[in-house]
Amino acid sequence: MKGLFITFEGPDGSGKTTQMKLLGERLASMGADVVRTREPGGTPIGDRLREIVLSPDNGEMMDETEILLYAASRAQHVREVIVPALERGKVVICDRFVDASIAYQGYGLGRDPEEVARINRFATGGLRPHRTYLLDVPAAVSRERLLSRALAASGAGLDRIEQKEREYHERVRDGFLLIAKAEPQRVMLIDANRTVADIAADIHADFDRLLQQQQ
Amino acid sequence: MKGLFITFEGPDGSGKTTQMKLLGERLASMGADVVRTREPGGTPIGDRLREIVLSPDNGEMMDETEILLYAASRAQHVREVIVPALERGKVVICDRFVDASIAYQGYGLGRDPEEVARINRFATGGLRPHRTYLLDVPAAVSRERLLSRALAASGAGLDRIEQKEREYHERVRDGFLLIAKAEPQRVMLIDANRTVADIAADIHADFDRLLQQQQ
Repeated sequence: MKGLFITFEGPDGSGKTTQMKLLGERLASMGADVVRTREPGGTPIGDRLREIVLSPDNGEMMDETEILLYAASRAQHVREVIVPALERGKVVICDRFVDASIAYQGYGLGRDPEEVARINRFATGGLRPHRTYLLDVPAAVSRERLLSRALAASGAGLDRIEQKEREYHERVRDGFLLIAKAEPQRVMLIDANRTVADIAADIHADFDRLLQQQQ
Repeated sequence: MKGLFITFEGPDGSGKTTQMKLLGERLASMGADVVRTREPGGTPIGDRLREIVLSPDNGEMMDETEILLYAASRAQHVREVIVPALERGKVVICDRFVDASIAYQGYGLGRDPEEVARINRFATGGLRPHRTYLLDVPAAVSRERLLSRALAASGAGLDRIEQKEREYHERVRDGFLLIAKAEPQRVMLIDANRTVADIAADIHADFDRLLQQQQ
C-alpha cells in the first residue's frame, strides 16, 4: 500500500476537527491527494449506524451492542473507503479509529480493553495508522468547551456519548494516555490545552518528518 | 434462571415460522407464559439493524460488517428481552440465534466459524439455548418454497441474504448439520421435508420430555 493513513484521537472539545482541517488544507496546497473521513460513519451504511449509536433516544443501548456497532461501522469504512484510497496512494486523515473504541468502550465503559482490541482486529483486518495524533486535554477543559458549544448552538444538545458522566470521561482520557505510552512510535501525544497555532506547528513538523521517512 | 430458552434454526422456507407458531400456541393453551421473538431484531435498536442488514440496497455490505451487525443486534436482544424474560420464568421461543450466524456467516460466507462463535460469545455473554430445533431440508426444496412464496406475494422480492447463490445455501445447510453433529444434546435435527403435522409431532414430543426434565 502506497498511501499514508493518519488518525486523530482525543475527546470531543479537544480541537481535533480544527487540526484535521488545517493538516488537510496544508496537504492539499502541497498537491497531495487527501481523503478526510470520520468514525463512526464514513460510508452510507456507517452513517446509518452512526445515527443509531449516537442518538440520545437509544439510552437503553447495551455496552456490548455499542462496541459491536462501532466495530461494524469500522469494518465497512476500512474496506469501502480507507484501504481503496491508500491503494491509490492517497493520504487518508480519519477522525477517530480503533484507539477511540479502546479508550471509550474499553477503559470508559470498564470492559476488557484487550477484548475490544480483538473485536476491532477482526473489524479492521489488522489495518493500523501510520501516525496517530492524540490531542490531550484535561477532561474538565474538553467538557467546558463542549458545553459552551452546545449552549451557543441554539437547540443543539449533547449526544448520547457526550451526556455520560464526568468519571467516564476521566477514564477515557486515562485510556488514551495508556495507549500513547504503549505505542510511542505510532502515537504522538500532543498537549492540546494550547493555541490552535502552537498545536498545528507540532503536528505539521511531525508530519513533514513522516513524509520524508516515507520517501 | 428459571425459564426455558428454545431456538428454531434452519433456512428460510424450512417451515420454521409455522412450527414456532404451533409450539407457541400449544404452550399458551397449557397456560405457559410464552415470549416469541426473532433475530435479527427483537428490540427497537435490533429492528433498525435488521432493516439495514437485510435491505437489498446494501449489496455493498462487507462480510465483517454483516457478522458484527448480527452480533450487535443479538447483544441487545439477549440483555433487553431474552434474559429478563427467562428470569421471570417464561418460555422464550426465538427464531434464529447464534447457530444461524455460525452457519450463514461462518460456513456460508467462508469465514472461520470459531471466530464467528467467539464474537457471538461476547455478544451473548455466553447464553445458550436449552433446546434448538433445527429444521433441515435440502437447499433445493427451501429455495423452491422461497421462490414460490415471493412469486405469490405480489411485488415482494427476496431480501439481500435470500438473493445469494445456491452454493452459499448449500454451505449454510452443511454448517447447520455440523453444528447438530457437534452438539446432539442441545440440537434436535428434524427432517423438515415432511408434513407440518409430522414435524410438529416430533417437536412437541421432544418438548414434553424437556419440560419433564426441568421439573
